[in-house]
Amino acid sequence: MTRIRLHAPCRGTESLAKVKVAILNLFPDATFSREGDELEGESSSVERLRERIHAQKIRDSARGPLLHGIEGSRIRVTLNKQAAYAGRVSFSADSPLGDIEVLIEAEDPEALIDAIAESTTRPPPAPLL
Amino acid sequence: MTRIRLHAPCRGTESLAKVKVAILNLFPDATFSREGDELEGESSSVERLRERIHAQKIRDSARGPLLHGIEGSRIRVTLNKQAAYAGRVSFSADSPLGDIEVLIEAEDPEALIDAIAESTTRPPPAPLL
Repeated sequence: MTRIRLHAPCRGTESLAKVKVAILNLFPDATFSREGDELEGESSSVERLRERIHAQKIRDSARGPLLHGIEGSRIRVTLNKQAAYAGRVSFSADSPLGDIEVLIEAEDPEALIDAIAESTTRPPPAPLL
Repeated sequence: MTRIRLHAPCRGTESLAKVKVAILNLFPDATFSREGDELEGESSSVERLRERIHAQKIRDSARGPLLHGIEGSRIRVTLNKQAAYAGRVSFSADSPLGDIEVLIEAEDPEALIDAIAESTTRPPPAPLL
């Protein structure tokens, strides 16, 4: 099981319910421990994230921010909140209304990134002779 | 009467009602001709804007973006949407994304700016002798 900590600001003009929908679109099992100006939650699965990255055909471009986000045994990435509200994965930072911060705990971050977004350009395994 | 055109985006996670409140906090007479992803409206008074600038004691700092915004017989400024939702005036000229765009039509823009935010440092008028 993967442990994923989620955090997103909810600005004055935003609807708390809609910010939750944005998070739940990518982490449908998320539960929230804090609601208000700041939303904090937890999820235990990157499956929807993986599905969306494959469906959007952004596996290779997703690897950049994921690999860049490795901090020891964690991966830290930010997802665009508005894209998430529309059900899409978009890695970004500094959006006007704030982003969704995602902190994924993983013993082997690179293996998890391969599971989420396997490279499409990596050479195929050597043929069995 | 002053004619003021107002425009603000309403992002996916935002509440249309709250974005309207943000605008109405600074332009209480505003009426909206377009609602949805984009909000368009009109107001005929800068009185609340003037009041807030005076109450916040930001007359001198407000003059910068107002004077910078003069385009012929119009003044174009952007106001931070979140500050407006909280009832405050905050000019945010460098990040128009997500802000309230304000276009004030004025035959004499500089005179209008003096009315909205008279300088506190300008020398007093010469005494009548």
